[in-house]
Amino acid sequence: MSLPASNSFPAPGSKTELEEGSVLTPRFGPDGLITCVTTDAASGEILMVAHMNAEALARTIETGEAWYWSRSRSELWHKGATSGQIQTVREIRTDCDQDALLLKVQVAGDGGCCHTGRRSCFYRKVESANGEIRLIAD
Amino acid sequence: MSLPASNSFPAPGSKTELEEGSVLTPRFGPDGLITCVTTDAASGEILMVAHMNAEALARTIETGEAWYWSRSRSELWHKGATSGQIQTVREIRTDCDQDALLLKVQVAGDGGCCHTGRRSCFYRKVESANGEIRLIAD
Repeated sequence: MSLPASNSFPAPGSKTELEEGSVLTPRFGPDGLITCVTTDAASGEILMVAHMNAEALARTIETGEAWYWSRSRSELWHKGATSGQIQTVREIRTDCDQDALLLKVQVAGDGGCCHTGRRSCFYRKVESANGEIRLIAD
Repeated sequence: MSLPASNSFPAPGSKTELEEGSVLTPRFGPDGLITCVTTDAASGEILMVAHMNAEALARTIETGEAWYWSRSRSELWHKGATSGQIQTVREIRTDCDQDALLLKVQVAGDGGCCHTGRRSCFYRKVESANGEIRLIAD
């Protein structure tokens, strides 16, 4: 498998090129990362928010499985390599100014995503009543 | 309207408190911002990815309308104040380690969200064929 070099994405162009162009020019932040929202391709449920560096994005496109950059471990992260919760990519989208990605995936293994054992990382609602803010788990 | 001070969210606690607790302790990044994914409460469609500082989050909770921090303009941003595309918040969720938020909103005005005129900012797919990567608009 020959992976694109981590600097293989073209540099971002003008605002018009970014917004209306057909060239993927991801706008990685100062830390070299771009935000990625991952949803279940079948249900649309939001599973997680994670980050990719250029190499993780290149590997994701090339292999059809989700790769991220683990900020806590400072390493490339093939999601599911340990847990079996491999994410097969059904669609990748980018947003208007190309500083965010959307991955629609099918999850293998037990179908879960969150390291706490839940299906989605977003298992708590923020509730506000009488000036008090609380988190309520589903 | 008395807004919470921008430092009014409690500091993040232990990993267990972050993941299993009922206290909202958002983990703002070094830039003071937290990532926010915003979806259409009715359809589940992902509309945008933006950022909030503590004051934007406090105002969002207090007013029930989405406030963000505009990184390009370096200012608080009451979404829709100019366009009429006010986002009324139906639900706020946070993820396992409280470094991302999910807003489910109902959009006023013409129901759109993206400054390019599209309903969602994610109007282009990333397609890869024969080693060539292209963006295809819907």
